[in-house]
Amino acid sequence: MAERMKTVRIGIAGLGTVGHAVAAILQSHGHDIAQRCGAHVKVSVVCRRSTIAAAEIPEGAEAVQDWRQVAESPNVDLVVETMGGTGAARELAVAALEHGKPLITANKNLLAAHGEQLMRLANQQNLPLGFEAAVAGGIPVIRAIAEGTAADRLRAVYGILNGTANYILTRMEAEGAEFDAVLQEAQRLGYAEANPAADVDGIDARDKLAILARLAFGARVLPTSIPTSGIRGLGAVDMTYARQLRSVIRLVGAAEYSESGLALSVRPWLVDQRSMLAKVEGVNNAVFVEGERVGTQMFYGRGAGGDATAVAVLSDVMEIAGDWAAGRTSAKFAGGFLPTRDLLLCRVPPAVRWYLRLVIRDRTGVLARVALILAEHGINIDFVLQQPGMNKEQLPFVITVEPVSEPDLMRAVAAINATDAVLEPVLPLRMQA
Amino acid sequence: MAERMKTVRIGIAGLGTVGHAVAAILQSHGHDIAQRCGAHVKVSVVCRRSTIAAAEIPEGAEAVQDWRQVAESPNVDLVVETMGGTGAARELAVAALEHGKPLITANKNLLAAHGEQLMRLANQQNLPLGFEAAVAGGIPVIRAIAEGTAADRLRAVYGILNGTANYILTRMEAEGAEFDAVLQEAQRLGYAEANPAADVDGIDARDKLAILARLAFGARVLPTSIPTSGIRGLGAVDMTYARQLRSVIRLVGAAEYSESGLALSVRPWLVDQRSMLAKVEGVNNAVFVEGERVGTQMFYGRGAGGDATAVAVLSDVMEIAGDWAAGRTSAKFAGGFLPTRDLLLCRVPPAVRWYLRLVIRDRTGVLARVALILAEHGINIDFVLQQPGMNKEQLPFVITVEPVSEPDLMRAVAAINATDAVLEPVLPLRMQA
Repeated sequence: MAERMKTVRIGIAGLGTVGHAVAAILQSHGHDIAQRCGAHVKVSVVCRRSTIAAAEIPEGAEAVQDWRQVAESPNVDLVVETMGGTGAARELAVAALEHGKPLITANKNLLAAHGEQLMRLANQQNLPLGFEAAVAGGIPVIRAIAEGTAADRLRAVYGILNGTANYILTRMEAEGAEFDAVLQEAQRLGYAEANPAADVDGIDARDKLAILARLAFGARVLPTSIPTSGIRGLGAVDMTYARQLRSVIRLVGAAEYSESGLALSVRPWLVDQRSMLAKVEGVNNAVFVEGERVGTQMFYGRGAGGDATAVAVLSDVMEIAGDWAAGRTSAKFAGGFLPTRDLLLCRVPPAVRWYLRLVIRDRTGVLARVALILAEHGINIDFVLQQPGMNKEQLPFVITVEPVSEPDLMRAVAAINATDAVLEPVLPLRMQA
Repeated sequence: MAERMKTVRIGIAGLGTVGHAVAAILQSHGHDIAQRCGAHVKVSVVCRRSTIAAAEIPEGAEAVQDWRQVAESPNVDLVVETMGGTGAARELAVAALEHGKPLITANKNLLAAHGEQLMRLANQQNLPLGFEAAVAGGIPVIRAIAEGTAADRLRAVYGILNGTANYILTRMEAEGAEFDAVLQEAQRLGYAEANPAADVDGIDARDKLAILARLAFGARVLPTSIPTSGIRGLGAVDMTYARQLRSVIRLVGAAEYSESGLALSVRPWLVDQRSMLAKVEGVNNAVFVEGERVGTQMFYGRGAGGDATAVAVLSDVMEIAGDWAAGRTSAKFAGGFLPTRDLLLCRVPPAVRWYLRLVIRDRTGVLARVALILAEHGINIDFVLQQPGMNKEQLPFVITVEPVSEPDLMRAVAAINATDAVLEPVLPLRMQA
């Protein structure tokens, strides 16, 4: 078998951490991989805009600086895109498919913004498009949703989709530290980027949620239309209150389907200490899938990192390479997940309980004003919480409210913020049911 | 597209809970399923040894009593085996493949005992063989291991593989009840069968472990060679001691790979209350996968039940039907997972800590005798635990010991059991690292 085994040559566009890890695994586990997928997989071309040192070039591969050479090279059978961004990466992706090359991408921004277009093009070209690595790193959650639960009707897909934000939250929780201090430490350790906006403001989670929601619900999703808030507003005081409520705080992206349509959001949630969401610590990710028939499933693991992401990239490479070497047309996402439910995006999200943290100068009178505004918006206060020993000058206290939908709550929050009762904008946390 | 869509006709051999659920989902979600996989999927033949009432027969299907008719029928394109057992089910599986029909089975006993033979036959016939439903019900753990982490080298696959045993353990834990009482309640509620041996003695978990170990490590595994013990010996007293140790008890099947080979076992483990294993309650299952590159992943959900299992059966049906309707050869498990590591099964399992519960008539002198036997086997006592208020007549107390491999421990346990120091055989629980 080994003698007659075909070789599949891959071109890596964007030789960074993930690209290097892909090449390294092919180098060290190449024999196992060939045995499993029935094809030798070799890196034939690597590409990066900046110069690639000789030592960085995988054995037998050619280094180029223009991505067009990857898409067009006669020595590339399959293109792996790990450039990131939505500019050149999109042009490369389109060029690869137009040149008849299967595309595997780890790029969530690209997929969130242009996934439908790329999927349509792949379909027209009868080419596979793999993106297991784009969501939740090495956890095979794309397969789980696209294949594993394909026969079920899903009610919700939600989870912890950004490892950096989760790392910061769990450090704040463990150390009672403030956001800025933990962020700086995370940056020093390489867990957060110099510009942390994508991670801490929920943008990265939002893009991944858009990809999952398309797969799970066949819905056309515009990522920028997803209500998104991150974790910058959170402080040590929230960790203290959370503990008092036997809870922890997690940044959750959620797609929830009901009769009134699909509700999408990225928000910090207050979750029970004993829940599985609470057990997800550090840079890990977890995706929960709720189906009518399968009940609740959870998929957990490292959400990022070159090695884990490279394993996900290679899971797609192996599937496509194996099909190709055996002369089979590859079925990967061949049209089954193009949007079919254009009209379903809804504006009636589920009603849930909320935690509202307010910073005020003096409590006297303020609680009554806030309660009045909430009442005017039809929102009932559940209870009021005040930690003893808090700074009396700038008093942070917490109100929890009975179930109300996110847009209704946000209108009331905006009204409270517009008064002079609060020193900072109200911080809302969704409370897990 | 819909007009020209092909129809794939499935024959269900063994029309029970799962078979009915498959037919019901195809009836209610047929349109979505066709849209996703590109083929209409219809039940054309159903088979059961006992008479099938007219109301049980899916619309448009024919009911037969001999499984040969399913394998041989010209109206069946694809065979779903939900008969159970290893007798007629094996004959049916072989006949289906020999008649050129793809086979999808939910039958872990069949796969554990004859999986290699069936996979070889499927390979020879160039036919797909699907068994997502055979392990962990609706959780797509076969895909996760066979595809998701295929590029990694795995170090361990372990987890809670039997929902009935887990239900009993979590009820005993919550209620402080004895095994027999909870088993009877589980039987009354339909969570345990009249003959509960397969579930409570670890046989079912062992068969599932054999399937997972083959996939994960490419190893030839004889299920009956896996050291297996169940949960019958556990009592309320163990739950009390476990709580004292801030732990709970879970029945865990584990395949662990090291330089000395592959160690397999099914045993009750003592696990930290805060661990993810401890969070798996009731009839749920969870499979943990540890890889060199992906780190630790966890796949969690309902491990049994007609509906969840049917979704897993249909995940394979949809993949194969989609390939077939599109004129593609299906790649499913086409040879990549036949055993390649015949010689790896090892007899040097990892050294771990153990909990030993002893029931003795009187502690005086006994502890010294037990300690002596342990010392003779090179095993060091970690600490001794005695719950106040326990029955002084038949004194149950606990010794925990420092890391020792399972075979070494079992030799010492056998020596203790052979003395007259203990009133019952020593109950060993593996302690999670």
